[in-house]
Amino acid sequence: MFIALNKRKIKLNIILLKTEDFIDTKIVKITGYRHDHIRNVLKPPLLSMLKTGIINGKTGRGTLLECGDHTLMEVSLTDDPPPPLEVTLILALPRPKVLKRVVYSAATMGVKSIHIINSWRVDKGYWYSDAVEEGYLDSTLIAALEQSRDTVLPAVEFHRFFSKFADDQLPGIMAGRDPLLAHPGTGSGEIRKGEKPVALAVGPEGGFITREVERFLGMGFTGVSLGKRILRVETAVTALLARLM
Amino acid sequence: MFIALNKRKIKLNIILLKTEDFIDTKIVKITGYRHDHIRNVLKPPLLSMLKTGIINGKTGRGTLLECGDHTLMEVSLTDDPPPPLEVTLILALPRPKVLKRVVYSAATMGVKSIHIINSWRVDKGYWYSDAVEEGYLDSTLIAALEQSRDTVLPAVEFHRFFSKFADDQLPGIMAGRDPLLAHPGTGSGEIRKGEKPVALAVGPEGGFITREVERFLGMGFTGVSLGKRILRVETAVTALLARLM
Repeated sequence: MFIALNKRKIKLNIILLKTEDFIDTKIVKITGYRHDHIRNVLKPPLLSMLKTGIINGKTGRGTLLECGDHTLMEVSLTDDPPPPLEVTLILALPRPKVLKRVVYSAATMGVKSIHIINSWRVDKGYWYSDAVEEGYLDSTLIAALEQSRDTVLPAVEFHRFFSKFADDQLPGIMAGRDPLLAHPGTGSGEIRKGEKPVALAVGPEGGFITREVERFLGMGFTGVSLGKRILRVETAVTALLARLM
Repeated sequence: MFIALNKRKIKLNIILLKTEDFIDTKIVKITGYRHDHIRNVLKPPLLSMLKTGIINGKTGRGTLLECGDHTLMEVSLTDDPPPPLEVTLILALPRPKVLKRVVYSAATMGVKSIHIINSWRVDKGYWYSDAVEEGYLDSTLIAALEQSRDTVLPAVEFHRFFSKFADDQLPGIMAGRDPLLAHPGTGSGEIRKGEKPVALAVGPEGGFITREVERFLGMGFTGVSLGKRILRVETAVTALLARLM
């Protein structure tokens, strides 16, 4: 009835299409979990209109032509996907399962660029885990789009070495953005959407160490905090992004 | 090394005490997972000061006197716990596991009053599940306090019937509070902390039905929304609360 993602049950709020689903200019043939969802959960009568979109492209409607062994729809994709959240998220690598949850939440909120970095307090074992394998986050990202009715896949990059990331990548990421460092005890606690896009850095459980904090601040980041409470990374990232929406 | 909560690993950011831990006015004897955490994770030398608090009371420091088969501390509890988040959360009953996650996040953010209610789109089976059993949320609430360095247990009440809740409970809950109904498509999207405490109602996956929305609005609730994206309940609650901090 639902797609399991990390034992969570996900509803398809949009039927996401790939180019290979098209068997004619406007006709798609859908199989697998999307077809199962349409047939067994949505159960729409023929000629129903279903919310549809093509990955990294437009959204629109699909008219249901057939729903037996597979789903056949005629699609009209003319609308833009929802606007992105103009936040580039820089996140110290958490446990693999937590990574999935954080990436999922951030993606449903519209984040399109995520940099996963090392930090002193990151368990080094995580860099040898599934989490950093090619494709580990693919189903998470798709599920997030299906939840939030988006089509644009976020880009996720992994950076194994903190200093190399700070030297080589951070200046480019910061260009044209307000760089914010989420760190308990720094900043005013008032985090509000400004005019510019944001680069938001969030540390591991336990926080960035002093040397890392100084590196961010030295490069021009502003420390921000949600208050004195220590929040789990998942809660903190969602709460911070909510302030920047 | 950590306490598992829903397969999540939780660190103790505060050692929470119960009155029965006191073997003298200022001396506590601690066993179980708290002792294990102190001995195996924190590994502090004797006479270290540990962040400590008594449930529903003050916070302060515990001086480690002994850490063998059990932990012995001399405590000094003179500080107030962190201020609560002045939001009364009214939540349509989600799946039991989701309920735990939402209650956990809300509690770490400082919510002290949670009303779990019925709604047309709530799976009726949830009302016969573990979720509504006495004590089901106890370990979740304690873990949330241990995460966020708080001592004050939130009150969670279950209300099986929507209309009865709206008739009998809602007027009292609304008194002195700004009543907000989170519902996609209603409201301006601008949710900001005001002067007054808030009563925030959040629907089930799929939202409250029209009749329920009209009931809330008719009683004086203002519709609010985080935008067009459809967020999972867990993400939505955290994001809404972050706007009200």
